[in-house]
Amino acid sequence: MPTYSSEAEFLAAYNIHDYSVPLSSVDVCIFTLHHQQLKVLCVKRSDYPFKDRWALAGGFIDIKNDADLKATALRTLTKKTGITTPYLEQLVTVGNQTRDPRGWSMTAVYFALIPYVALPQTGIERSEWHEVNFALNLDLAFDHQQFLSMALERIRAKVLYSLIPAHLISAPFTLTELQQVYEIIMGHEIEKKSFRRRLEREEVLTATGQSKQEGAGRPAALFTLKPECADFNFKRQLESD
Amino acid sequence: MPTYSSEAEFLAAYNIHDYSVPLSSVDVCIFTLHHQQLKVLCVKRSDYPFKDRWALAGGFIDIKNDADLKATALRTLTKKTGITTPYLEQLVTVGNQTRDPRGWSMTAVYFALIPYVALPQTGIERSEWHEVNFALNLDLAFDHQQFLSMALERIRAKVLYSLIPAHLISAPFTLTELQQVYEIIMGHEIEKKSFRRRLEREEVLTATGQSKQEGAGRPAALFTLKPECADFNFKRQLESD
Repeated sequence: MPTYSSEAEFLAAYNIHDYSVPLSSVDVCIFTLHHQQLKVLCVKRSDYPFKDRWALAGGFIDIKNDADLKATALRTLTKKTGITTPYLEQLVTVGNQTRDPRGWSMTAVYFALIPYVALPQTGIERSEWHEVNFALNLDLAFDHQQFLSMALERIRAKVLYSLIPAHLISAPFTLTELQQVYEIIMGHEIEKKSFRRRLEREEVLTATGQSKQEGAGRPAALFTLKPECADFNFKRQLESD
Repeated sequence: MPTYSSEAEFLAAYNIHDYSVPLSSVDVCIFTLHHQQLKVLCVKRSDYPFKDRWALAGGFIDIKNDADLKATALRTLTKKTGITTPYLEQLVTVGNQTRDPRGWSMTAVYFALIPYVALPQTGIERSEWHEVNFALNLDLAFDHQQFLSMALERIRAKVLYSLIPAHLISAPFTLTELQQVYEIIMGHEIEKKSFRRRLEREEVLTATGQSKQEGAGRPAALFTLKPECADFNFKRQLESD
């Protein structure tokens, strides 16, 4: 190994192609709520490897244009959905010799929550929203089924103490609409009174002053999530209130 | 872009060096308890970039020999400490254009908890245990100070509902020794009775049948963590018992 007299000299001689390096990508589990179901964006692969198989959205890091991993995730999400401001969270990073037939591959996996949008079909790859349990049975490409399971586990854990379900619906929303998202993710009904009490106690919502007719009786007030509460965590879990 | 008639043909033509790819590494915050202090393993860099600066342990992925990211983390840890069975957890992955002067760099950051060992000084890089607050002021190389802060935050959050402090001391241990680790990480004393009650209630420890003299009075019983409880999470936080 040559020795260098300065960092500048060392850097001038450095060439990543002198080394054997892994493939580096970002995958994104993009979730929404549609027709009272939690759905995930699936992409039918138009190319090898895993041609014609369903997969999560994702792609290689573009080191010329992506400032960081989050930029890669956002670029993927925006290209598939048109949405530019999702709730976006890093889930896990998986890297090993076997997950990609092209070679040692490392992928940073994110999950995103967005209000429902119809998917623009611009690229050569077909995108579709699939109900999550249906998607789990699609024999997804690579190890994407494992990522989808992990993302669902994380969301179901976080729903108990966070406001992340609010990102799955358009704002403004009524408290009933918000409660329904929690119930869909949790798979059972929750107690209205304690649900509303915890929201009031922590002052995480803004009343818009507008309202919406939700059936008989008084119109229901419409709320938005306070921007600073996008990541808010309650101190106690929903069911131990 | 050429088209291929099969995945095998596509793979045969695939060459990662046709692409601009990031550097890929693994960094490990290795923690132990020594002289009643939480300490982190720091390495004085012997080479560019950041020559002569303290850093966390870490290195590039060796795609020929590392089966997966965890193997890279373990290889780093074992080389520095001789320990082969740490508590090891993925913390975060950071990738961006600016963190490494050699170019776009992606690193999977782990943290490890091990009982204290004197550090073998075999390589050309000097390794030392530094008390964590001292280490935070060392102007660590790359973005390692940020990783150390994040690891401390994760450990301090997990101490409230997990058994991870047990991995910082040698087994078997007395309940007093275990409680002390919790108190050192939390920065204050905790109530002995409720601490012991939660351990008993969940049956997470095995009594070895041995005991140890800890001062005047009866000898204190010695315990080990049940192997299946290495990752155990209590349902409620320590201080809300």
